Amino acid sequence: MKYKIKMLPINVDIEVEPEKNLLESLTESGIIIRSTCAGKGTCGKCKIIIKEGKYKTKETNLISDEERKKNVVLACQTEPIEDLVIYIPIHYGQIFAPAEKIDKSPVRPEESIFSFSPLIRKIFLKLEEPSLKNNTADWERIKYKLDMDVDIDINIIRNLSSFLRNSGWQVTLTIADIGGRNKIIKVEPGDTTKTNFGIALDIGTTTVVIYLVDMNTGKIINAKASYNKQISFGDDVITRIIYAEEQNGLENLNKAIIDTVNNLIMSVVNEESISVTDIYAIQCAGNTTMTHLFYNIPPDNIRKEPYVPVVNSCPDIKSSELGINIYSDGVISCVPGVASYVGGDIVAGVLACGMDNFSTVSLLIDLGTNGEIVLGNRDWLLCCACSAGPAFEGVGIKCGIHAVEGAIQRIEISEDRTEVKYYTIGNTLPRGICGSGLLDIPAELLKHNIIDRSGKFIEGSSKLVRRNDDKELEFVIVKKENSATGEDIVITESDILNLIRSKGAVFLGIQVLLEQVGLKFDNINHIYISGGFGTFIDIEKAIIVGLLPDLPHDKFSFIGNSSITGAKMCLLSKEARNKVKEIAKKMTYIELSITSNFMNEYTSTLFLPHTNIDLFPSVKKILNTKS
Amino acid sequence: MKYKIKMLPINVDIEVEPEKNLLESLTESGIIIRSTCAGKGTCGKCKIIIKEGKYKTKETNLISDEERKKNVVLACQTEPIEDLVIYIPIHYGQIFAPAEKIDKSPVRPEESIFSFSPLIRKIFLKLEEPSLKNNTADWERIKYKLDMDVDIDINIIRNLSSFLRNSGWQVTLTIADIGGRNKIIKVEPGDTTKTNFGIALDIGTTTVVIYLVDMNTGKIINAKASYNKQISFGDDVITRIIYAEEQNGLENLNKAIIDTVNNLIMSVVNEESISVTDIYAIQCAGNTTMTHLFYNIPPDNIRKEPYVPVVNSCPDIKSSELGINIYSDGVISCVPGVASYVGGDIVAGVLACGMDNFSTVSLLIDLGTNGEIVLGNRDWLLCCACSAGPAFEGVGIKCGIHAVEGAIQRIEISEDRTEVKYYTIGNTLPRGICGSGLLDIPAELLKHNIIDRSGKFIEGSSKLVRRNDDKELEFVIVKKENSATGEDIVITESDILNLIRSKGAVFLGIQVLLEQVGLKFDNINHIYISGGFGTFIDIEKAIIVGLLPDLPHDKFSFIGNSSITGAKMCLLSKEARNKVKEIAKKMTYIELSITSNFMNEYTSTLFLPHTNIDLFPSVKKILNTKS
Repeated sequence: MKYKIKMLPINVDIEVEPEKNLLESLTESGIIIRSTCAGKGTCGKCKIIIKEGKYKTKETNLISDEERKKNVVLACQTEPIEDLVIYIPIHYGQIFAPAEKIDKSPVRPEESIFSFSPLIRKIFLKLEEPSLKNNTADWERIKYKLDMDVDIDINIIRNLSSFLRNSGWQVTLTIADIGGRNKIIKVEPGDTTKTNFGIALDIGTTTVVIYLVDMNTGKIINAKASYNKQISFGDDVITRIIYAEEQNGLENLNKAIIDTVNNLIMSVVNEESISVTDIYAIQCAGNTTMTHLFYNIPPDNIRKEPYVPVVNSCPDIKSSELGINIYSDGVISCVPGVASYVGGDIVAGVLACGMDNFSTVSLLIDLGTNGEIVLGNRDWLLCCACSAGPAFEGVGIKCGIHAVEGAIQRIEISEDRTEVKYYTIGNTLPRGICGSGLLDIPAELLKHNIIDRSGKFIEGSSKLVRRNDDKELEFVIVKKENSATGEDIVITESDILNLIRSKGAVFLGIQVLLEQVGLKFDNINHIYISGGFGTFIDIEKAIIVGLLPDLPHDKFSFIGNSSITGAKMCLLSKEARNKVKEIAKKMTYIELSITSNFMNEYTSTLFLPHTNIDLFPSVKKILNTKS
Repeated sequence: MKYKIKMLPINVDIEVEPEKNLLESLTESGIIIRSTCAGKGTCGKCKIIIKEGKYKTKETNLISDEERKKNVVLACQTEPIEDLVIYIPIHYGQIFAPAEKIDKSPVRPEESIFSFSPLIRKIFLKLEEPSLKNNTADWERIKYKLDMDVDIDINIIRNLSSFLRNSGWQVTLTIADIGGRNKIIKVEPGDTTKTNFGIALDIGTTTVVIYLVDMNTGKIINAKASYNKQISFGDDVITRIIYAEEQNGLENLNKAIIDTVNNLIMSVVNEESISVTDIYAIQCAGNTTMTHLFYNIPPDNIRKEPYVPVVNSCPDIKSSELGINIYSDGVISCVPGVASYVGGDIVAGVLACGMDNFSTVSLLIDLGTNGEIVLGNRDWLLCCACSAGPAFEGVGIKCGIHAVEGAIQRIEISEDRTEVKYYTIGNTLPRGICGSGLLDIPAELLKHNIIDRSGKFIEGSSKLVRRNDDKELEFVIVKKENSATGEDIVITESDILNLIRSKGAVFLGIQVLLEQVGLKFDNINHIYISGGFGTFIDIEKAIIVGLLPDLPHDKFSFIGNSSITGAKMCLLSKEARNKVKEIAKKMTYIELSITSNFMNEYTSTLFLPHTNIDLFPSVKKILNTKS
């Protein structure tokens, strides 16, 4: 016998075995609630709320009396004794679920959840056969029955007459919401309403993700991610823009991303045994450069002062205009962006977290190849972009790798500084260090006085510090005999300085936005962290290195890939599609380089956690305790 | 020295010589006011009103005292003695002006004349150059400056960046109203607002007419008419529909009309020395079959019971989709139709005459290859189509020709029935009989007792009646020695029966519409007659043969080619474009063949003027007087 657990707000049902604790059961189902004590009941991080149903849970002083009244429990200490409805509060736990497994609901407050009004609808019509008493035209007969304002392509009209007569006047219309207007893009005989699919697409500089969505239910039925094939033309957007200016450069980059998307589509289509022609829409989101390259628009002015994109809000177009392999008259829609370095992915993120609805001030930090930051509330939104560089994605780091199996995410250094314990993604042999490891390692090194606050190694602090062939100091994390690559896995001084520059850029962005509106860190009610990398980072370590402001940990939420979450919301709701336009309009872009005192302030961030340690009282305390 | 004469309501200025009477001056300028006494001052038909300015006019008892108070004069008896403003009341005179000469204003009441909001606008923009303080995207920069909701094609976006920079940020946008939405269809460097042309197009079964319109002023700057090249595939719509069902039939018909239109365009473009790419829109109107063939839509169900067209309201499309030789992204828009035999030409006619605005009941009769009738007022509109056949266009008549030079329009038979005086278009040698002559001749024959009321010749009534080689009775109008063709010009008994069937069909249509709403002829406040043929007919004769109801002559107006007038109104005003949609929706189509007692009533119309002569009291009087 199994129990059914309904998880809110992500709205996913799973079946669990009675004797297993909820943390285990959720993990097995692919729903990862962060816990740092491996389910021992000591870290107190896996808090969830039982909304309905009976359960047994072990007593713990990690739950306050007030929390207990609300049925807050530690997932690792709780077993169901009947079907449950549980709520995973993002402010408590740090939920991460692979895209394939969940229908990730937005973090928006309930009152702003949007109604179901998808980009594509199929409608089955039984038409009255014409007679002398009702001999209106074929097309007007359809329109009358539909009773809505709707456009149609002349090519469909040209085939309508034989089509209606051959199908016995029973047809299915596929209606797309193109630029806010209903348009019939397909007429099929009989009732084909069941086969109606759409795609949410996140075009990242490094990674491209698609959700295959059943447009009738809004459910994600498959999901895939892959590297953006453009990687072979450069790691970051600037390199790609420069390449785009070469002969055939733009064409090659466009072809690379179109290929990437088409391959992902083929892959989900094959797995689900559906036809590509049953996919009628793609709702995408991406940064401004990626959007330009996807639509085959020259991006060159994005990198040249004054950094002007050609377009923030792309018109909806036909899939055939881009060579995307779905139904040829399918619609490609894109979440609008704000500026050259704040694209539709960030606008989608604002939509997903709902910060534009709150009266209190929230901060959204998207940590991808670049870092983008949004500060604001329902009245105003400021945003900026930080040249964080791709360090958080493992790029430009000696042993850096993307967040794949075998990537080191976390280390623990023994008190005598002689041994290192490491934790890899998938618990496999270590292959390198990914972004979260790159935050964790310097924090550990600092805590153990192996590096100083400027990021430099303290010689003689540990026998694991050595000088390499390039005469550079480095710290050995994994010896070659234990690594999957047969090479030592190390972190060098330049790696750490690289990381400091990246975290400094992000932190400065947060500071500048706050200064623009005269606010302090304390005025931030909540911080949403999005981006693939963001999902894995440890708040404590991120504060220690000075990436994130020193605020209570329950003020942070990880919202995963909010770009695709936002895109999916737009795919499914006209209100969401209208909302992203509003959000993009409302967002004021702050060009960091022209704010006063920029260079001075930037230099101040190039310390761990910051030149002004008083900005980080909790870190000050740790460092004082340790020293 | 010349005087300036402003003519209302057609709003045309001409210059005239002082010593010439106004009838002569107007005729020389191409404005033809019907007069049957050749300017002798005896027919009293050329009445006009002098609104402003001094003139001298001869006394005549053809002007009543009441008329005199309103400054009504006979044009042929009046000379200007300074600049004048004259009003040509369509209810009095029968105005005919070649399309080239006049900017024909609609007959709509003044309060319903539409504002100028053309299908195409050009807007010149001086954009602020981007800076770090204002580095919004290129496209959004344009949108912000425009301050309107506007769409754009992705292809224009793709070229926008270099375009704006190369043009020094000064560009002209061409904005089309496509399906009610603004869309930028062209971006040009500098200020090109002056070159902005559109075309109003009337696609007739027989004749195709275009107006080249300056979209900045709304003025017609050139106009051309030609035969519809489809004529080689059949004279009437049914023949063409049958041909369309053959292999390549539809393609050939489509090509023929597209060629016809392209030739007309080339012709006006060459005369005006403009470029075809400066023409951005075509607003067309035509009957339902012509519209289908123009848009390359199979028309076959139009001719098959229950007579269902594929579409009444065609979507706006790009000119390149039809192969029309104007700017390739130019827009083709079409006045919507109502049913298989009541097309956009008739809806345009209702718009042009404004009958949908009056509280009183009006009748619109369009006499072309077919006859269409609309009855109604501002609350309701009924319409029907009569299978009048192309007799009124001279087709199927032994000596019938189209209304070209040398066509006999009118005859006078001497009291002793031995001689015939005839009047031809252009006063040239007679070549045949056109539609107006076909009404006039039977009326004269009836008045002189040469035919009886069933249309049969009374043997021995005139020496001009003879039996031809086919043993059929015919009446000789012109002997071969006097004709341009070297052949006798005659009217045969079958010609007359043909004509009777045509006029009967139209009259029955009027009767049926009236019956539907329980009205009598007397309830009709005004009758508008449109169509090329309609312009030339003599009301008196049309009543004698029973084509038109027996009402006072001042209840009739000729409104010329109201299809192209309506199309031009739509080209120039969004209100008009919305209005035609409303009109088409409001018009209830009555299928004549399913109304009760149809055949009986039809048979009753096959008499001159009608089996029930009491429906025609004035004709009864004439016939009684004569006999």
